[in-house]
Amino acid sequence: MHEIDLNKYRLRTDLISEHIDSNNNIKKEVKSYNNIKVETVTLSSDDAKIIEKEAGVYKTIYFDDVTDEGNFNKVLDVLIRELKEMLKLTEVKNSYSCLIVGLGNRKATPDALGPLTVEGVKITRQIIEVGLALDEKYRVISSLSPGVMGTTGIETKEIIEGVIEKTKPDFLIVIDALAASSLERINKTIQITNTGITPGSGLLNNRFAINESSLNIPVIAIGVPTVVDATTIVSNTINYMFRHFSYEKENANNKALKLVLPENRNYKNHDKTLSKEEKKEVMGLIGNLNDEEIKTLISEVLTPLGYNLLVTPKEIDYVIEQLSKLLAVGINKSLELN
Amino acid sequence: MHEIDLNKYRLRTDLISEHIDSNNNIKKEVKSYNNIKVETVTLSSDDAKIIEKEAGVYKTIYFDDVTDEGNFNKVLDVLIRELKEMLKLTEVKNSYSCLIVGLGNRKATPDALGPLTVEGVKITRQIIEVGLALDEKYRVISSLSPGVMGTTGIETKEIIEGVIEKTKPDFLIVIDALAASSLERINKTIQITNTGITPGSGLLNNRFAINESSLNIPVIAIGVPTVVDATTIVSNTINYMFRHFSYEKENANNKALKLVLPENRNYKNHDKTLSKEEKKEVMGLIGNLNDEEIKTLISEVLTPLGYNLLVTPKEIDYVIEQLSKLLAVGINKSLELN
Amino acid sequence: MHEIDLNKYRLRTDLISEHIDSNNNIKKEVKSYNNIKVETVTLSSDDAKIIEKEAGVYKTIYFDDVTDEGNFNKVLDVLIRELKEMLKLTEVKNSYSCLIVGLGNRKATPDALGPLTVEGVKITRQIIEVGLALDEKYRVISSLSPGVMGTTGIETKEIIEGVIEKTKPDFLIVIDALAASSLERINKTIQITNTGITPGSGLLNNRFAINESSLNIPVIAIGVPTVVDATTIVSNTINYMFRHFSYEKENANNKALKLVLPENRNYKNHDKTLSKEEKKEVMGLIGNLNDEEIKTLISEVLTPLGYNLLVTPKEIDYVIEQLSKLLAVGINKSLELN
Amino acid sequence: MHEIDLNKYRLRTDLISEHIDSNNNIKKEVKSYNNIKVETVTLSSDDAKIIEKEAGVYKTIYFDDVTDEGNFNKVLDVLIRELKEMLKLTEVKNSYSCLIVGLGNRKATPDALGPLTVEGVKITRQIIEVGLALDEKYRVISSLSPGVMGTTGIETKEIIEGVIEKTKPDFLIVIDALAASSLERINKTIQITNTGITPGSGLLNNRFAINESSLNIPVIAIGVPTVVDATTIVSNTINYMFRHFSYEKENANNKALKLVLPENRNYKNHDKTLSKEEKKEVMGLIGNLNDEEIKTLISEVLTPLGYNLLVTPKEIDYVIEQLSKLLAVGINKSLELN
Repeated sequence: MHEIDLNKYRLRTDLISEHIDSNNNIKKEVKSYNNIKVETVTLSSDDAKIIEKEAGVYKTIYFDDVTDEGNFNKVLDVLIRELKEMLKLTEVKNSYSCLIVGLGNRKATPDALGPLTVEGVKITRQIIEVGLALDEKYRVISSLSPGVMGTTGIETKEIIEGVIEKTKPDFLIVIDALAASSLERINKTIQITNTGITPGSGLLNNRFAINESSLNIPVIAIGVPTVVDATTIVSNTINYMFRHFSYEKENANNKALKLVLPENRNYKNHDKTLSKEEKKEVMGLIGNLNDEEIKTLISEVLTPLGYNLLVTPKEIDYVIEQLSKLLAVGINKSLELN
Repeated sequence: MHEIDLNKYRLRTDLISEHIDSNNNIKKEVKSYNNIKVETVTLSSDDAKIIEKEAGVYKTIYFDDVTDEGNFNKVLDVLIRELKEMLKLTEVKNSYSCLIVGLGNRKATPDALGPLTVEGVKITRQIIEVGLALDEKYRVISSLSPGVMGTTGIETKEIIEGVIEKTKPDFLIVIDALAASSLERINKTIQITNTGITPGSGLLNNRFAINESSLNIPVIAIGVPTVVDATTIVSNTINYMFRHFSYEKENANNKALKLVLPENRNYKNHDKTLSKEEKKEVMGLIGNLNDEEIKTLISEVLTPLGYNLLVTPKEIDYVIEQLSKLLAVGINKSLELN
Repeated sequence: MHEIDLNKYRLRTDLISEHIDSNNNIKKEVKSYNNIKVETVTLSSDDAKIIEKEAGVYKTIYFDDVTDEGNFNKVLDVLIRELKEMLKLTEVKNSYSCLIVGLGNRKATPDALGPLTVEGVKITRQIIEVGLALDEKYRVISSLSPGVMGTTGIETKEIIEGVIEKTKPDFLIVIDALAASSLERINKTIQITNTGITPGSGLLNNRFAINESSLNIPVIAIGVPTVVDATTIVSNTINYMFRHFSYEKENANNKALKLVLPENRNYKNHDKTLSKEEKKEVMGLIGNLNDEEIKTLISEVLTPLGYNLLVTPKEIDYVIEQLSKLLAVGINKSLELN
Repeated sequence: MHEIDLNKYRLRTDLISEHIDSNNNIKKEVKSYNNIKVETVTLSSDDAKIIEKEAGVYKTIYFDDVTDEGNFNKVLDVLIRELKEMLKLTEVKNSYSCLIVGLGNRKATPDALGPLTVEGVKITRQIIEVGLALDEKYRVISSLSPGVMGTTGIETKEIIEGVIEKTKPDFLIVIDALAASSLERINKTIQITNTGITPGSGLLNNRFAINESSLNIPVIAIGVPTVVDATTIVSNTINYMFRHFSYEKENANNKALKLVLPENRNYKNHDKTLSKEEKKEVMGLIGNLNDEEIKTLISEVLTPLGYNLLVTPKEIDYVIEQLSKLLAVGINKSLELN
């Protein structure tokens, strides 16, 4: 009852934005509401091939903290706004019935985002099932928490396909916890895409992909990175180190800074880094590796010891509680008809 | 997320034994191990028609308390023994793959028996799914917690059918919480049958029945009564009252008894009751109604007020924890090959 | 870890209103807001002696259902209003620091109301403890969930006294789940009193009472009945039965009623009952017992069999979740300064 | 209800063994049972001063994984053995009554070890409280879960002191989750000491220490590291990197190794590292910092960004479930009299 679908986390690249960052040809539209940034990327099939992702629309919402009530409501407004837009972009009609699927393991807090969100969504299909009329404000909505293969022994996609064949929903909303490829995104990012998702498997082929091409109905996937691996923590830190040194160097003669404790010197907005030579000086051979090479090296160092853990912040229980509440309310509001 | 499938409890007659009790033509075989009684009823299709139940084998295990460790293990031994026998009677081959389904609402303690049991069962199918070989000690086992229509909007049977079509198990084990039709059975009875089960719906037709005739594979259902309705509590009490008075009358001249506080006079094993006239004297018109009439009357009294509640003992959390552990271990052991 | 303090439920008379009902000399002030009834009883020390309760103010809020959002907010408004008034009546100054105590067993749903409420209250004392200044909007608030003697081995009052001596709060708010002495009150009543509470013990002496006279600081107790015993269910039903018959008799010639199914005949507002003779006719000897005698008889019938269970409605998990949220928000709002 | 006492984790040095490692004068006795290593350190008051720890006995049990049943039982045997020895070394008499305290936040999984363990311990004091006789097999045992200051607003020690004064236990057993100062120890180490513990506060003074000198009764503390901070992950990795390179160098001509994927080259038992010069070559300036300097640097890099998170492995829920079960059973067995 406790197995966790580790495969999911083989994917080191769950967030589209991180692909775009390293690929300047692809344009992203950036908006901001109440200091909450929303990035929208529309991948043409050509661009999609280049970065080996599905073609379609990807929206990424960046926020600080949803455990603060004021901030929670700001993020909620943006989430509803973007979900509604995604429904429109995906041409979801008011008449469409929806199946909401919560992926992940209910018994593993960082992986429970999907099932917990589903517990909070408003479903209506049973009203029709028992022969009553549905308030015109609502569409037909059902939900499912298929569990993970580690605890059911069944490929998630098989369960979803089986239920789709029996209940014939017109489109799918899928919620899942993701792996972050950067420390700063964990629990602070929501990605919405109409390109679907591949739970765990991480295999190159499409066998387990949950998307329109495999299920023949539109699939809107909502993901939040809730875990990160040790390799990512270390490689991120090395980059922060270079920024830190560059900042210290630039401020070498800043007497005021001298009075500030190192741990209070906020270089968060200092986006310069060191030169090739400086990096070599500070970090020797490693200083001259590129990001991919560093990640590969660290993974080679940690994996044999069994220390390349997937970790999650200590406060995860409360964060997941709030995030799933946020997603549930956001989904409920965006699915209402009017 | 909190709806509860009340329909389930329309069935006032989940336990076969209570039908047999009132029908002397049908024989039941009674055995006992460590003072744990096991009743086995084999219903021919003819008998089945008479009492409007499915034909097949019904085993009922009676015990006192599984929160006591010693007793827990005694019941476990009997459970494993009877489950193995049921597998044999149902001609389940070693080569058969099994899908274990936990019916009920994970979020409503008395209804969570099925999902919690499933969390404890040992599943093996994922080993084969990832292309590894299975220890010959085990058969192919997968599991599913479909939730209840009140929270998913989907008829439980539809989900199960969909998963069966995709994963092709050779037989089903279904676990569910039942309604007791007597105070003394609640949380103290396990019924095992190869005739399947009809979750909730309580409709006369077979539309939602989960059994071999509807699914084309053998279905072994395991049920434990965890709730009782107010009508049952009251009608039971009226019968106990008659026994109580009969006992008091019989012991009218028993001086020793005089010294015992009424609430300590154990008439549990006093199986006599009052005569028709005595009943009338004690309880007037109501004294002369039969069980069915009394239940109907009480339900007519309580239902309009909305007080015909389904209730469960206050300690339900711990009892369900123990019962689901008992069922999980029992199922795991009985499914092992040797 | 699962023991439950059954003693608590020896008290069959947790709700003051039920004492007053049977004692016409004591006046109660009844108000109503949005159809939510609030009864206020102020017991003089003389009256208190008569009905063997503590002298002080008792407020009882009656509502239908807090699982409905609209209704939840109506009840919340009334709760805040009455809590603020109770604080004023109890002469709680703005400068007073508060210790909020959640009584009961976190692991037994119907008994978890106190601990769950405490999880939702806003505490502030730690801000001062670490040497920071407190927003003037807030008073100093700390909280405690002492658990129950069955799981800690310590009398609840001892833990509370120990903490009071160390932290010196100026007044106490105590939350507890109660036993209902009527089916219709369960989960639908909040009692607020400044006379304190006696968790469980049910002993006649005051040894375990948590109130001002024993702790030397004001104590405001908030209680909600969440369980009922079988005796209560049966004795209530017998009274409903008499009302039911009286209603049927009165409507004997009402042709329209003939067309209504018995279980739909709403006699909820029919407050007449049967005459002594009619009761005897319907219920024989039992028909002529008074309430206390009937309860005693039923308890004598059920207790020897071990069937005088404390039960709770099947949906208790969600109801407790909502009730504890209601109490937490109500307490937070009523404690704010302005 | 979600605050977490982060202070606790300021202590980067919860495990004694890590102090000893860097201090060769202090002897440790090492034993092994079933490949489970047990280190015993007895700190004289002189040695204690040197490494700024309390004088007394420290036992550290090292194991691999308690989620494997076979291993669980092996560790359990060792735990019981060492706890009994600690009770003897601490001169705990059979007549002594025990208060078991579970420190930490029940609502934050990695911090819930203490409260969850307490839920599983067998308490007996209530039997005496209600005036019954205690089976001579048991001593008087009570328990307490005081919560954390972040959720109660009360310094943990104040609650414990208050309860001690009221209930007069003869000795204390305190369970707490710790911060690991090395990746390899997380969830795989149990430390038992009779020197007590200082929950969180991390202040240099002893104000909040829970130990014999502050409470005047023996205190046996049981701790398990369940979280680690990002700084530790990175600095550990840098050291592993040096070992990795040293291993690769040493095996430069090992043709067989060439055939092994880097991530499969198990250098776990390769305890050599690089020379000063080699370190400089590989890691430049950073290569020549000592452990403390590296940790300080990394913390200076991560803290300003708010990324020096306390993290816990993704599977924490199940691990904590097993660890708390392990501790509860171990404590129960070791406290039995015979």
